[in-house]
Amino acid sequence: MPELTISQYSLVYNMFSLTIACMWASFAFFVLAKNQVAPRFRISLIVSALVVGIAGYHYLRIFQSWGEAYQLVGDAYVASGVPFNDAYRYVDWLLTVPLLMVELVLVMGLVKSVQNSLIARLSIAAFLMIALGYPGEVLPAEAKTGMFSAYGMWGFLSTIPFVYILYVLWVELGKTMDKQPPKVRMLLRNIRLLTLATWGFYPIAYMGPFIGLGSGAGAEVFVQVGYTIADIAAKCGYGIMIYNIARAKTEALEESTAVEERELVNA
Amino acid sequence: MPELTISQYSLVYNMFSLTIACMWASFAFFVLAKNQVAPRFRISLIVSALVVGIAGYHYLRIFQSWGEAYQLVGDAYVASGVPFNDAYRYVDWLLTVPLLMVELVLVMGLVKSVQNSLIARLSIAAFLMIALGYPGEVLPAEAKTGMFSAYGMWGFLSTIPFVYILYVLWVELGKTMDKQPPKVRMLLRNIRLLTLATWGFYPIAYMGPFIGLGSGAGAEVFVQVGYTIADIAAKCGYGIMIYNIARAKTEALEESTAVEERELVNA
Repeated sequence: MPELTISQYSLVYNMFSLTIACMWASFAFFVLAKNQVAPRFRISLIVSALVVGIAGYHYLRIFQSWGEAYQLVGDAYVASGVPFNDAYRYVDWLLTVPLLMVELVLVMGLVKSVQNSLIARLSIAAFLMIALGYPGEVLPAEAKTGMFSAYGMWGFLSTIPFVYILYVLWVELGKTMDKQPPKVRMLLRNIRLLTLATWGFYPIAYMGPFIGLGSGAGAEVFVQVGYTIADIAAKCGYGIMIYNIARAKTEALEESTAVEERELVNA
Repeated sequence: MPELTISQYSLVYNMFSLTIACMWASFAFFVLAKNQVAPRFRISLIVSALVVGIAGYHYLRIFQSWGEAYQLVGDAYVASGVPFNDAYRYVDWLLTVPLLMVELVLVMGLVKSVQNSLIARLSIAAFLMIALGYPGEVLPAEAKTGMFSAYGMWGFLSTIPFVYILYVLWVELGKTMDKQPPKVRMLLRNIRLLTLATWGFYPIAYMGPFIGLGSGAGAEVFVQVGYTIADIAAKCGYGIMIYNIARAKTEALEESTAVEERELVNA
């Protein structure tokens, strides 16, 4: 762990604390706002709650590990010798990333057979994406060199399911999106872009050692702060977009019921 | 950190503890009282619950940091050397202040397009107001001098979105307020005044170093106690006013439904 100034250490520390607050507040939100959407979309909000609840727990652990990995010596924070357990992130993602795929498919309200097939394929691909990155992440720092090292190989293997997920989201889901109400279609396009933008950060952080982001205080702060922003956007922000989709679909449902009732009265 | 007498230290300690109790009690209240208002206003109470929940978490951390920053030596509390993490306040405000704007706009029950535009503008302005104050706050104490220092500049930049928020609340929201029932109009005027009165304390605390409030035991106690009172009023008190507005609107709604039903019966 590189030596950090007090403000560098505090920035990471405060961002971890901010993430804990965001995750637990989002958990409360999804639980409390569940009944604001039609019954068939509630399961999607429940899954959103699980994702941020799991991440909130892991960030408590990451926060604690960060505190233990450093000690204040004079005017600087230096490594205490206790390793910073960055691998918590992979344990978190192993659970949460497949669930993010599940909540997205559930909120679309597709035909059962299509829905089940999409959930199975997307969540298995998400699981493989994380599981194949982990053996690379836990290699010692000195082994994280060169594209053609073991580190590069695990990164490459992990990219295959990532590309598959993008293919399913853009090509397969793209087809079913035309059947959604216009407002929902727009929201689904946005959530797909959010997924690409936030998930895009993780491979960049993984490739850090290749692009001169491997060591040094600046790189450490950049990667940790980047992870927190990506996690908040990809879990809390993503969940709020799922809620908005569920709300838009609930309103569309209520409108069509109201129209039906008026027609019945007039008939 | 200045040396404090036992009663000075205890006053701050007890005020922090009081704030934790207020925040969590308010959280319970907003969750439990949610169904006392019409469904369309519940989301506003949910957001109120998130605000005090997030603040309750941060006050737990501030409380702990206060305890670690001091140690009892003889008859006085002296700095232990562990820095008091006042920046938690900024992390808290970064989340809660935009949400305070969201709950206010939501409870007004405006047309969707007006509502979304107000939420976007007010919450971005609130976020900028806090984010621009943070770099000033984390400057070392000796740099917090003179209006024309970097400290003064961050304070000034942070004031721009603050003034914008006041403009939107008084000018833009003022126009839509005429369409609200008279009782609700009065409550909305009060909540706007509460916002101005409580938010007004934060810039005063920030300007402390310019007005002789920068150091010394009295200044430290004044600022910390002032923050807790401002936070309780601006979050718990504000949330209770939101609840009262939601109740008044629920009653107005029930009355108009009752009138409609009576008319149907008479027809």
